[in-house]
Amino acid sequence: MTELKNDRLLRALRRQPVDRTPIWIMRQAGRYLPEYLKTRAEAGSFMNLCKTPELACEVTLQPLRRFDLDAAILFSDILTIPDAMGLGLYFEQGEGPRFENPVTDRKAIDRLPVPDPEQELRYVMDAVRTIRAELNGKVPLIGFTGSPWTLATYMVEGGSSKEFATIKGLMYTDPDALHSLLDKVTQAVTAYLNAQIAAGAQALMIFDTWGGALTPTAYRDFSLQYMRKIITGLDRGAGDERIPVVQFTKGGGLWLEDQITTGCDALGLDWTIDIGQARQRVGYQVALQGNMDPGVLYGSHDLIRREVQTILDAFGHHPGHVFNLGHGIHQHIDPDNVKFLVDTVHKYSATLLAGS
Amino acid sequence: MTELKNDRLLRALRRQPVDRTPIWIMRQAGRYLPEYLKTRAEAGSFMNLCKTPELACEVTLQPLRRFDLDAAILFSDILTIPDAMGLGLYFEQGEGPRFENPVTDRKAIDRLPVPDPEQELRYVMDAVRTIRAELNGKVPLIGFTGSPWTLATYMVEGGSSKEFATIKGLMYTDPDALHSLLDKVTQAVTAYLNAQIAAGAQALMIFDTWGGALTPTAYRDFSLQYMRKIITGLDRGAGDERIPVVQFTKGGGLWLEDQITTGCDALGLDWTIDIGQARQRVGYQVALQGNMDPGVLYGSHDLIRREVQTILDAFGHHPGHVFNLGHGIHQHIDPDNVKFLVDTVHKYSATLLAGS
Repeated sequence: MTELKNDRLLRALRRQPVDRTPIWIMRQAGRYLPEYLKTRAEAGSFMNLCKTPELACEVTLQPLRRFDLDAAILFSDILTIPDAMGLGLYFEQGEGPRFENPVTDRKAIDRLPVPDPEQELRYVMDAVRTIRAELNGKVPLIGFTGSPWTLATYMVEGGSSKEFATIKGLMYTDPDALHSLLDKVTQAVTAYLNAQIAAGAQALMIFDTWGGALTPTAYRDFSLQYMRKIITGLDRGAGDERIPVVQFTKGGGLWLEDQITTGCDALGLDWTIDIGQARQRVGYQVALQGNMDPGVLYGSHDLIRREVQTILDAFGHHPGHVFNLGHGIHQHIDPDNVKFLVDTVHKYSATLLAGS
Repeated sequence: MTELKNDRLLRALRRQPVDRTPIWIMRQAGRYLPEYLKTRAEAGSFMNLCKTPELACEVTLQPLRRFDLDAAILFSDILTIPDAMGLGLYFEQGEGPRFENPVTDRKAIDRLPVPDPEQELRYVMDAVRTIRAELNGKVPLIGFTGSPWTLATYMVEGGSSKEFATIKGLMYTDPDALHSLLDKVTQAVTAYLNAQIAAGAQALMIFDTWGGALTPTAYRDFSLQYMRKIITGLDRGAGDERIPVVQFTKGGGLWLEDQITTGCDALGLDWTIDIGQARQRVGYQVALQGNMDPGVLYGSHDLIRREVQTILDAFGHHPGHVFNLGHGIHQHIDPDNVKFLVDTVHKYSATLLAGS
């Protein structure tokens, strides 16, 4: 493998000292970039973009050509797995993702296959291989998945949801059936992430987008438990060669102490928590990733600078911080503000860390 | 005024001892009740239902005929205020609330009138008077409002939102304009709640449904500050005659210590926080209202009983608990399960409190 020229992300995730705080941005390859919209239009559909490795590679690399980012993240969708399990993913204009065949009962759960990542999801692994080759060691490549709970919400609801009425109905009337579903999704996710590692992913992220819809007890039973199983099941090496895992439960700021028990290397934080308080609560057991409100990027350079400084100061002179937004970048953000953000994080953190 | 026959809600909100834990349910007058659907159909539209005091009174009382609830809550909508400010509220099938004239710039903000509650919102005050007369002291009547921040999200976005892109754009580019809007809404809300008190509301609830979309700093500046101003501006009497205020920021579990600084009597809690831990954090400074996951009502009686016991046990043998769901009841809940919930809360808490 080519030598990695910028290992700040991996060092920060391992809580090793860095000369400046690494930064990447959730949804950095996305609709706020005109070149993304162009490639997306050429692909014809979002799923075609995901399923064509050369195009997925192209949009993965686009933000790195504009901004001095410290990581690339595989361009794909968390719902590739349920799609490969036969649920029939499609996107309705303005409606978000939908499934043709949602999972509604025990029988449907029992029938679900566990896909072979190098078969049904080969297009993802091909994208990982293509991106790794194209990156040529510039920055590390992050692979990712949705958490089993989060994937299950879409699989049971048939799409996005506000109240999670159907899956909560299942959870509170037939928890065993839901556990069967989560077990199966966990097997699929574990194989999927191991295949991403084999194909070249150098760090992994688990997006638990909807874990925050649960009670503290249900979060441990129906989300956290399965993220722990995934992390335990990864073939990710040891020591400084170990592939780090970032675990991100949106809306999970009350449960940090529980979250760090899974064996993850870092927690993703949304913007509702003060990152300094989060660090105090988890100590040095994991790194932290986050956590600027994506809305700040609507603001002036002055405002962005102040918010960056506030977050870097709150985290303080410690190893183990990866700068990011607290959730995906919005569609109508000016790319110039993203450039300013990336450069400001680098510049200010370099001063801060040099003084420590 | 008629003597109040059941004052458990008011006693609990004042942290006085009660013989059993009072319970009411957010959205207790709603679509899960067939009689509500019937009255709603007769009204022709949701807004007609709100604007016809006799019908609003009828649906307010419907759940009290079925269940042994300890409070009635005015049937209305948080968006009556922006509607009275001229924004033109309407409801689109399956789309939720929309405004014909959203507030998009400084000029629109400056032009907004502060409505006179006994004029433009007289239908609400008439509903309060009608309900008080019909209740005849059976249980107290809760009046309510949305928080200024929450109302502003709808006013600026023009309806519901996921990312709050427009209002966050305003917040981060022209905070002074947003503060002007929030100031004006605060004036309107304060007058509105004072008119509800004058018309007969015996407790008040401020719904800060979208406060949880903010950073800790922005929450204090753009939401909490204005709830404090409202509470300070209420003519609510003193001592045991003082009208208690419940303040509820959904998704605000990380900020309880800040929340109790407004002069509120109680905090509403969603289900993401353990109510025992919440009580430890706020001590005896306020009462707590909540916090069962509405999804539990899909479950069996056994499950409901277990969850009720868990919450009552976690709160413990202290005065100052009002049982409720952590958010509104879902549409497809069986009313029999609601009856079981109410009776179980009463029965189990009576045993628990007798033993204390």
